Amino acid sequence: MDWLANSIMNQRGAARGKVGTTHHLTEAKQGRYHYTMGPYSDPVLHVQPGDRIVVETRDAFEGVIKTEQDMPSKLCRMPFLNPQNGPIMIEGAEKGDAVAVYIESMKPRGDNPRGTCAMIPEFGALTGTYFTATLNDPLPEKVRKIDLDEKGVYWSKRVTLPYRPHIGTLSLSPEIDSINSLTPDNHGGNMDLPDMGPGSITYLPVRSPGGRLFIGDAHACQGDGEVCGVAVEYPTVTTIRVDLIKGYTIEWPRLEKEDFIMAIGSTRPLEDAARIAYRELVRWMAADYDFDQWDAYMILSQCGMVRLGNFVDPKYTVGAGIRKHYLAPES
Amino acid sequence: MDWLANSIMNQRGAARGKVGTTHHLTEAKQGRYHYTMGPYSDPVLHVQPGDRIVVETRDAFEGVIKTEQDMPSKLCRMPFLNPQNGPIMIEGAEKGDAVAVYIESMKPRGDNPRGTCAMIPEFGALTGTYFTATLNDPLPEKVRKIDLDEKGVYWSKRVTLPYRPHIGTLSLSPEIDSINSLTPDNHGGNMDLPDMGPGSITYLPVRSPGGRLFIGDAHACQGDGEVCGVAVEYPTVTTIRVDLIKGYTIEWPRLEKEDFIMAIGSTRPLEDAARIAYRELVRWMAADYDFDQWDAYMILSQCGMVRLGNFVDPKYTVGAGIRKHYLAPES
Amino acid sequence: MDWLANSIMNQRGAARGKVGTTHHLTEAKQGRYHYTMGPYSDPVLHVQPGDRIVVETRDAFEGVIKTEQDMPSKLCRMPFLNPQNGPIMIEGAEKGDAVAVYIESMKPRGDNPRGTCAMIPEFGALTGTYFTATLNDPLPEKVRKIDLDEKGVYWSKRVTLPYRPHIGTLSLSPEIDSINSLTPDNHGGNMDLPDMGPGSITYLPVRSPGGRLFIGDAHACQGDGEVCGVAVEYPTVTTIRVDLIKGYTIEWPRLEKEDFIMAIGSTRPLEDAARIAYRELVRWMAADYDFDQWDAYMILSQCGMVRLGNFVDPKYTVGAGIRKHYLAPES
Amino acid sequence: MDWLANSIMNQRGAARGKVGTTHHLTEAKQGRYHYTMGPYSDPVLHVQPGDRIVVETRDAFEGVIKTEQDMPSKLCRMPFLNPQNGPIMIEGAEKGDAVAVYIESMKPRGDNPRGTCAMIPEFGALTGTYFTATLNDPLPEKVRKIDLDEKGVYWSKRVTLPYRPHIGTLSLSPEIDSINSLTPDNHGGNMDLPDMGPGSITYLPVRSPGGRLFIGDAHACQGDGEVCGVAVEYPTVTTIRVDLIKGYTIEWPRLEKEDFIMAIGSTRPLEDAARIAYRELVRWMAADYDFDQWDAYMILSQCGMVRLGNFVDPKYTVGAGIRKHYLAPES
Repeated sequence: MDWLANSIMNQRGAARGKVGTTHHLTEAKQGRYHYTMGPYSDPVLHVQPGDRIVVETRDAFEGVIKTEQDMPSKLCRMPFLNPQNGPIMIEGAEKGDAVAVYIESMKPRGDNPRGTCAMIPEFGALTGTYFTATLNDPLPEKVRKIDLDEKGVYWSKRVTLPYRPHIGTLSLSPEIDSINSLTPDNHGGNMDLPDMGPGSITYLPVRSPGGRLFIGDAHACQGDGEVCGVAVEYPTVTTIRVDLIKGYTIEWPRLEKEDFIMAIGSTRPLEDAARIAYRELVRWMAADYDFDQWDAYMILSQCGMVRLGNFVDPKYTVGAGIRKHYLAPES
Repeated sequence: MDWLANSIMNQRGAARGKVGTTHHLTEAKQGRYHYTMGPYSDPVLHVQPGDRIVVETRDAFEGVIKTEQDMPSKLCRMPFLNPQNGPIMIEGAEKGDAVAVYIESMKPRGDNPRGTCAMIPEFGALTGTYFTATLNDPLPEKVRKIDLDEKGVYWSKRVTLPYRPHIGTLSLSPEIDSINSLTPDNHGGNMDLPDMGPGSITYLPVRSPGGRLFIGDAHACQGDGEVCGVAVEYPTVTTIRVDLIKGYTIEWPRLEKEDFIMAIGSTRPLEDAARIAYRELVRWMAADYDFDQWDAYMILSQCGMVRLGNFVDPKYTVGAGIRKHYLAPES
Repeated sequence: MDWLANSIMNQRGAARGKVGTTHHLTEAKQGRYHYTMGPYSDPVLHVQPGDRIVVETRDAFEGVIKTEQDMPSKLCRMPFLNPQNGPIMIEGAEKGDAVAVYIESMKPRGDNPRGTCAMIPEFGALTGTYFTATLNDPLPEKVRKIDLDEKGVYWSKRVTLPYRPHIGTLSLSPEIDSINSLTPDNHGGNMDLPDMGPGSITYLPVRSPGGRLFIGDAHACQGDGEVCGVAVEYPTVTTIRVDLIKGYTIEWPRLEKEDFIMAIGSTRPLEDAARIAYRELVRWMAADYDFDQWDAYMILSQCGMVRLGNFVDPKYTVGAGIRKHYLAPES
Repeated sequence: MDWLANSIMNQRGAARGKVGTTHHLTEAKQGRYHYTMGPYSDPVLHVQPGDRIVVETRDAFEGVIKTEQDMPSKLCRMPFLNPQNGPIMIEGAEKGDAVAVYIESMKPRGDNPRGTCAMIPEFGALTGTYFTATLNDPLPEKVRKIDLDEKGVYWSKRVTLPYRPHIGTLSLSPEIDSINSLTPDNHGGNMDLPDMGPGSITYLPVRSPGGRLFIGDAHACQGDGEVCGVAVEYPTVTTIRVDLIKGYTIEWPRLEKEDFIMAIGSTRPLEDAARIAYRELVRWMAADYDFDQWDAYMILSQCGMVRLGNFVDPKYTVGAGIRKHYLAPES
C-alpha cells in the first residue's frame, strides 16, 4: 500500500488519501443507464473527494445476450450499447482540475455463464467496418458465453484465461459535447486498457462542473488491441475511490500503477493515438519529474512502454508509459 | 431550374418542389448561437417541408477578428468556435427519413474587410496538431482580413480569388450524441465541401425527432482540403429551402447538383473517409439507379470524382461523385 | 503551343524546346519488360535532351487477359504485373537534376476489345487487402473486356466513357532501391494520375546517373482514386519528349499543364500523401514564383486543387495544384 | 535449452538442431556494407543450414558519430544509413521456404562511449517528417554518446538503462525489389523489435535463391516504438545460427521465443501493420496449432500481445503474439 501513499492521488488530491463515505450505486439506484457521456444527463450521485463508490456495472450488451443463440445484431440496437453508470458528481470539481479514480476491486455479478464474447458484423479489427468501409460480406456473427470467476475465465476445454478484470469505459464529461459510450477521446471513454483494473489510478480532466463521472464496460480479461472487437464482457460489483486534484490541468487521461505511469491518447489513425500518448508523457516528465524535454524524448526511445488499448472503436487508444524507477531523482 | 424539378428533393420530397413560407432567422431571433449539434438544445424555429429560411450566419470566428492584429489564440476560446444557427425543427421528420437542404443564395453581410483567414497555432494540415501531436514549435500565428463582394475576393494586390460561396457546416442532430461544430461525421457537421454552395441540395439523415437542422460556417471561397485550416470566413445572409423525404434512409450525407451526385464520408485516416464516400456511392447507384453493384464499382474506377473537403478538422471529409449523364438508363 | 514555349521544360531544359531525334522503342527493341524500377537493369535506349521517343507500351496485365473468362489470379503472378518500358538513359542526367517528360500523344494499339478492367481478389479500395488485412472472403473476381478507340471507351450498352488517355506509371530510378512497378514513391512510379496524359509535362528527380526512365501502365480513362484498383488498361503507342533540367533539384514528382502546376506525393496514410503534395507546392511557389511561404499556404487554402491519383496501391498518390493565373506576378 | 529443442526451427529445420560450421563475418571479410537489401548484390558468405555465423555489425551511423558534437545531418548522407552485413547465402533456400535465424548472443564491440543516440531533423515520431510533411521548424539536432557494457547502458547520472540487446534490421531479399535498410516490409528489414534479441528465433520468407540474409542495426536497448527515431545504437559481435525450413511458406516474418510466438507486420498507417500481424497470427494458429480461425480470432481478443516495434520508419512495425501455453492441445 506504500505506493498508493506516494501516488499523485494521495499526495495531491483533496482527500490526501483519507477514505470518506461509501456509496452504493446499485442497478436500482442507477435506474436508466447512459449511452452517451456529456453535460446533459441528470446526476445519480453526489460524492465528496475521498469517497468510495460501490458500483453495479452491467455488461456491454446490457445482459441481453444470454445464450450462444442470442445474436447482437438482433438484440442490440446501435447506439444503445455499452451502458454506463453515472453521472456521479464530485463536489468541487471545476474545469482545469483532475479527478482521480482508484479501482479497489472488481467482482463478478450474476450467474454463470456470466461472460460474453461475440463477433459482431462489421465490427472488429480484421473486418471491413462502418469506417473502413468495404464491399466484402461481413464475417459470420458468433456468440460465446463463458463461465468465469475470480480464479479464471473458462473459455473452452482447451483454453483457460486468467481473470484480469479492468474497466473498459471511464469518463468525465466533455465541456459541451456528449459522446457515445463506444468512443474514446480526451475525456476518457471507451479506452479498453487492460491496465485500468484493481490497483490502478486513472486521472481524468474536468471540463464540466462536478466532473460528471461515468463508468462501465467491465472486462474479465482482454488482449492488447481487443482484436475481434469484444473482450470477455461481464457484469460486476466494482469498488472505486475518487479524489479531486485542484488545478491539475491535463489534456488527456493518465494512469498510475505501482510501478509505472502512463499517458493515454485516443484518435485515428493509430500512429496519432501513439503520438498523443507519447507527447503527453514527455510533457508530464518535464513538468512533474524535472526532465529536460529532449532528454525525456530520447530516454523514452530507450525504455518507453506502449499498450494498445483497442483498435476497433470509432477511435483507437494507446497508452505510453515509463517505469517509475526511471523517474527517481538523481541520487 | 429544370434539373431542380428532376432532383431527388423535388421528386421525392413532401413538398414536391412547392415553395412554402419564408422564415427569417436573424441574429436577434437566433439569440445564442450553438457550438455543438445534438438533441439537447432548444429549437429556434419550426418549419414545414418546402419552407424557405433566410439565415444570418456569423463567421467562424463569430466576428471577433476585426483587424490583422486580432489573434485567434487570444480572442477565441475552444470549443466555442464556429457558431451555428439552429436548431430548426422540420415538421414530421423522424428517424429513418432524410432532410433536403437546397441553398438558394449566399450574400455577404457587414462591412469590408468582411473576410477573415488565419493561421492558428497547431491547426491546419501542414503543422503538428492536437491529434498529430509533435514537439515542434507551432507555426507563426497570422491573420488576414480580406475585402470581398459578390464579384470577387480581393486577397492581395497580386491575387484576386473568385467569389465561390458555400456552407462549411450543415447538420442534423445525431440520435444521442452532441458533437462540436468543428467535427464532421455521419450527421453532417463541418464538412467544408466547396460544392455545398448555391445551387446544391444536401441530403442529411434524420436521427432525432424534427431533424434539428444546424447551419453556419460560410466560406467566400475555399481550396480542396482547406490546407491551412481556414477558408475565407465571412458573415452571410444565406437563403435555403428545406424539404423532407419520408423513408429515405441514408447513412451519410449526400449532395446533388445540376450535373452530378456525390456521397460524403468523414473520418480519419483520409482513406477511410474516401472508402465511406465511395461505398455509399456504389450502394446509391445500386439502390436508386439500377446498377449492379460490381458494375457500379468498376465504372466508378473509370469516372468517379473525388472532392477533398478538408483534412484539417478532427475528422476529414471526402466526397465521391459521378456525373448524372452516366446514370441515365440504357436508351 | 504557347504555354509549352513558356513551360518550365522549355524555359529551363537543356534542349530549350528544340525537338531532337525520334527513337522507336518497339516491343521488339524493348525485349524483356521490367517489373521493378531501379539502377540494376540494362538500358534499352540512350537519348539526348530534346529527343522524342515513340514507345510501345503493354497493358498492365501484359496482354494475358484476352477474354472475360481469363482470371488475373490464374494468369498473372505477383510481382510480375505492370510491365514497364525502359530504362531509357538521358545523356548528362546526374543526381540533383530533373528530367522533364512531355507526353505528345497516346494511341491505342492492337485489336478490340483492347481495354481490360478487373476486380482482383484483395486488391482495390473497397475490400480488405494485403495491407488492410481482414478475414473477410474476398470480393468476386471479375474481368471486363472493353472496346475503345480515340473517340470513346465503350463500357456497356448503357455507359460510354470518354477517351482520356494517361500514363499510370512513370519513373526515374531511385538511387539504390529498386521498387516494383505497382508502388509509387518519390521517384514517381505507379501514380495513376489522370492528369498525366497528352499535353502534360512531368518533372522527375534524377537520383541515378542517366536518370533511367521507365514508362508503362497506360489507361484509356480513370476516375479519381481508381477505386476498384484497375482503370481501363490498354496497350498504346505513346509518344513522349524528354528534356533535362540541370540543377533543378526536386524531392517529389511535379506536373505542369497548360493552366496549372501540380506537386505529387505518394505514401500512406492518404493524409500524408496530401501533406507531401501541398508542402512541395508551398515550397515551389516560394522558390519559383516569389511567394512568401505563409502567403502561399493561406492562398492554397482558398484555391488549391487536389487530385486523388489512387488509394489502392501499396502507397497512395495525391496531386496538389494551383492554376497558373494565380501565379502571375503583381501587375 | 528445452524450448529450443521444441522450437519450430529445431523441429522442422533441415539441421534439426544440429550445429554446423562456425563462420566469421568480420568487418574485413564483409568489406563494403549494404544499404539496400535485394537480389542484386554480391554474396559475402555461403553457409549450410545449421551453421553458426559470428558477425561484426556496425552501428546504424556506421561509426561516424564519435562525439556529441558530431551531427548526423553533417556526417551521414541519406540513403547511406544503417549498414548491413551480408548477403549471406543459405544453401538450398528457394522461394516458398523459410529461413530461421536464432540469435545466440550479442556482445558490444569497440571502446566506450560505444552507444549513440540522436535527434535527427525531421526524423522520429513526435516531429513533422519527410512523409508527415509539415512546415514547422525541425526539432533541434542532438547527439548523445553513451557508455555501455553487458551490465547496463549508462545514459546519465540519473538514469541507467538495462542492457537489452537486439537486432533492429534482419532481412532476406525480396524477389525483385531492393529495399533500403531503413524500411521494413514483408521481407523483414528495419523492424526494430526489442524481442529480436539473444534467445529469439526469427523466421523469414525466402523469395530469392539462397535467401540472401542481411543483418545489422544492433540496439543495446530500445523502448516500444523507438519514439525519437533512434535507439542506443552500437557495434557488436553478434552470433547467430541459421536453419532452413523447406516448404514453410510464410507471407510475413515471424518470431519465436521461449514462451510466445509472434507474427510481424510492417506498413502504414499503424493500424494496418497491426491488422497484418494479427491476421498472420490467426492463420498461423489455424494452420499449425489446430485452432478454428474464429476461435483463434476471439481468443486473441482476450490474450493477444502487441509489441510496437517502431512508428518512425518509412513503414511502421507491429508484432502480435500469443503465449505458448495457450497453444497447448486439449489435455
